[in-house]
Amino acid sequence: MENNPTRLSHVDPDGRARMVDLTDKPATARTARARAEVWFPPDAARTLGLLGPECAADLVGPKGPVFQTARLAGIMAAKRTSDLIPLCHPLPLDAVAVDLRVVGDGLVEITATCKTTHKTGVEMEALTAASVAALTVYDMCKALSHAIEIRHLCLVEKTGGKSGHARP
Amino acid sequence: MENNPTRLSHVDPDGRARMVDLTDKPATARTARARAEVWFPPDAARTLGLLGPECAADLVGPKGPVFQTARLAGIMAAKRTSDLIPLCHPLPLDAVAVDLRVVGDGLVEITATCKTTHKTGVEMEALTAASVAALTVYDMCKALSHAIEIRHLCLVEKTGGKSGHARP
Amino acid sequence: MENNPTRLSHVDPDGRARMVDLTDKPATARTARARAEVWFPPDAARTLGLLGPECAADLVGPKGPVFQTARLAGIMAAKRTSDLIPLCHPLPLDAVAVDLRVVGDGLVEITATCKTTHKTGVEMEALTAASVAALTVYDMCKALSHAIEIRHLCLVEKTGGKSGHARP
Amino acid sequence: MENNPTRLSHVDPDGRARMVDLTDKPATARTARARAEVWFPPDAARTLGLLGPECAADLVGPKGPVFQTARLAGIMAAKRTSDLIPLCHPLPLDAVAVDLRVVGDGLVEITATCKTTHKTGVEMEALTAASVAALTVYDMCKALSHAIEIRHLCLVEKTGGKSGHARP
Amino acid sequence: MENNPTRLSHVDPDGRARMVDLTDKPATARTARARAEVWFPPDAARTLGLLGPECAADLVGPKGPVFQTARLAGIMAAKRTSDLIPLCHPLPLDAVAVDLRVVGDGLVEITATCKTTHKTGVEMEALTAASVAALTVYDMCKALSHAIEIRHLCLVEKTGGKSGHARP
Amino acid sequence: MENNPTRLSHVDPDGRARMVDLTDKPATARTARARAEVWFPPDAARTLGLLGPECAADLVGPKGPVFQTARLAGIMAAKRTSDLIPLCHPLPLDAVAVDLRVVGDGLVEITATCKTTHKTGVEMEALTAASVAALTVYDMCKALSHAIEIRHLCLVEKTGGKSGHARP
Repeated sequence: MENNPTRLSHVDPDGRARMVDLTDKPATARTARARAEVWFPPDAARTLGLLGPECAADLVGPKGPVFQTARLAGIMAAKRTSDLIPLCHPLPLDAVAVDLRVVGDGLVEITATCKTTHKTGVEMEALTAASVAALTVYDMCKALSHAIEIRHLCLVEKTGGKSGHARP
Repeated sequence: MENNPTRLSHVDPDGRARMVDLTDKPATARTARARAEVWFPPDAARTLGLLGPECAADLVGPKGPVFQTARLAGIMAAKRTSDLIPLCHPLPLDAVAVDLRVVGDGLVEITATCKTTHKTGVEMEALTAASVAALTVYDMCKALSHAIEIRHLCLVEKTGGKSGHARP
Repeated sequence: MENNPTRLSHVDPDGRARMVDLTDKPATARTARARAEVWFPPDAARTLGLLGPECAADLVGPKGPVFQTARLAGIMAAKRTSDLIPLCHPLPLDAVAVDLRVVGDGLVEITATCKTTHKTGVEMEALTAASVAALTVYDMCKALSHAIEIRHLCLVEKTGGKSGHARP
Repeated sequence: MENNPTRLSHVDPDGRARMVDLTDKPATARTARARAEVWFPPDAARTLGLLGPECAADLVGPKGPVFQTARLAGIMAAKRTSDLIPLCHPLPLDAVAVDLRVVGDGLVEITATCKTTHKTGVEMEALTAASVAALTVYDMCKALSHAIEIRHLCLVEKTGGKSGHARP
Repeated sequence: MENNPTRLSHVDPDGRARMVDLTDKPATARTARARAEVWFPPDAARTLGLLGPECAADLVGPKGPVFQTARLAGIMAAKRTSDLIPLCHPLPLDAVAVDLRVVGDGLVEITATCKTTHKTGVEMEALTAASVAALTVYDMCKALSHAIEIRHLCLVEKTGGKSGHARP
Repeated sequence: MENNPTRLSHVDPDGRARMVDLTDKPATARTARARAEVWFPPDAARTLGLLGPECAADLVGPKGPVFQTARLAGIMAAKRTSDLIPLCHPLPLDAVAVDLRVVGDGLVEITATCKTTHKTGVEMEALTAASVAALTVYDMCKALSHAIEIRHLCLVEKTGGKSGHARP
């Protein structure tokens, strides 16, 4: 039976989930940046001050404590990534940064950047940070609307490792 | 200073993040269902067998171990929700179910359903389960493409609590 | 050998650590409030704006992000209490609130309040929240001085349970 | 707006909490030692054997299991530091030791020492270990008195890193 | 395809892992008791004082700190059961007790008892407590011998729930 | 009082539990392999397809989802080892693999292999992975029989470190 003609790195030839073996990989400096969007329906966007000319700063008005809480939740989640994603390796993180800003009417962009000096990359850490920051925004605003949606969570850039500098 | 004219449930009148006080709420049966999509570029979709007539079953072919791992990761993440989302209440879960299926060329739909009998709902638990299941799919397939994207994470339905049966 | 003439609730007659058995206790509404102080040497206090007439508000100036981060760390730690304190029971929390304010030159007071409806109290949850909030203040300010000190962590008040309303 | 004239290492120029970036720091051997005191009112001190000539040993009498449990709780908490303190880096620990001894009538001193070979220090690990050990002592003795107080949690000494050997 | 003729409670008819749905089950008092053995080769047993007439007490001699550490590790692990076993429900524990005693030359018996008042039993909590206590004994003694073995981990008795009082 | 004539590595001369100090140990490549057995009574073995000629493959029939869930639970538990075993060091894991196969009528063998490049070995990680995988098998099959037993959990082999290649 050939269950894995695709040579998925996390599935062995018999179709069993597995961690990638890092034993022979060198530790190098690596970074990854991920982003997500949180979309608000118009009424909720208005209430939160996510419309018009006030959009620039992230700490003013009702969105202030929301963005600050989300930032910390994202940073802390990056550190829990290997607890959450079954086949991720635990690794020391050199830095985690999470930023939130209003990029359009009712649209919040979350960017998460992670750094490590290790044998494997921090792509999943950045994606997990962005994801949990977005969930935290949802949690704190869900009393305004249940139609809030998390969109376009993806990798923006990664550096280091075999593939060097890459943008998907 | 009026920092919270919006009466966000998770922000106090002085703009400080806070947990909602459940002391006087009755424990009732509650459910929530959330969904997310994972989108694959065509080459990765082809390799994983996410195209054409084989799409129906979720355990056959290379996607089998991916979907099974993601399901378990989602279930386990639901139980960690209050560890991840700063202002979520810890609560006993009656059930968690996570399903993955191919709904179009290169498009995987993840549905997470949570149930509790408690003073507050399980919306965040369902969203967290769907989110971590989607991240796990990404993790196991990222060797195929870094352009995989997680899309449209949202609440589908909730029952129980003050608002009763609701679809956003 | 009589190792426990004191009938410590958490030590059995043979001197072995044990959890208290809650089987026959009724679930009742309970609260606990704990406090701690963080003391800063004068230079650090001046730099942080912990002196003179600006002391009132907790979100203005350099201390703003420190206090906000500490508040969230305290809330999240309350939820981890039974993971940290070996003989504590896991329990559902109805509410956690953590407040920080400047109460004198270079002196920050942290107050943590926890609520539950359960068979045992939330004294340890309130103390743990205050303690971790204080450690977080220390962490964020330690570049200013290593002489910062955490002082007078104690219970202020508890209600509910066998002893009813009590102040130590 | 100049929100951070103090250049707090954990706050960026816009007043946002952040982790320090360790990318370019060398890994060196580092240690930190922290201490805390637990104060007991006279009746509780007498019951626990914290008075007079028996004070020396820490494993004899009713305080034995209390001290042993607190030691382990402190050691385990050191390993959870980066889970608890939002902006702490996860790091490998070379050693953790926690000691408790009676230093006066009704006064227990807790000392926690942590070691690592990493890019940042273990000050927060030592403080967290001492803090959780003290909370565990409180938990196990709270049936005797709610006036027990945790006092003077501070750093005693650190070695390694940019500042070399330092006593605050 | 009929993948589950056995109606395993944790596998759905399509062969997918699932949590049992507790929504309609009543909360009742439940207990479970599990046991495990740790076997030591003769030299290690002699060194640890696990031979002959000294066997009775568990706190005397070199085995004292080993047994005490294992007891606490087992109690704490019981509280983490739903974090470890993917399809276990999180639940409040009324009590956890772990005992270790020498039952023969080089043979240590570990008994773990858990209690809850909930919709499902605490069988897995008792087995997890016994298991982690046994692993802790191994860890602390492995410098003496790597041939130490953990044996016969099983359920001894459970009460409450649909099956009432049961011994396997 | 001489409490530790045995020089147990995890107990100090005064009988206090302690972590081993790794400060001066070099980081080297290390592996460990552990195994456990899960024994099923005949009826349960028959229902699960653990008898006769079908025994070879691990993903076919009712045992498929059981084995897959156990594999992931074991891998994830390896990453939690230092959270569970009080005196274990946290360490980065290079790889974790868990395999399950039927080795006789009603007898399932679990093998767990862990790798690291660190100052201490991964023996406890491998034993913890095998142990939690076995508990997960029990959990998913306990509706069939409560007489299922976990047996013979032991180290099979370790490489690296002072003792080099060793089989107990």
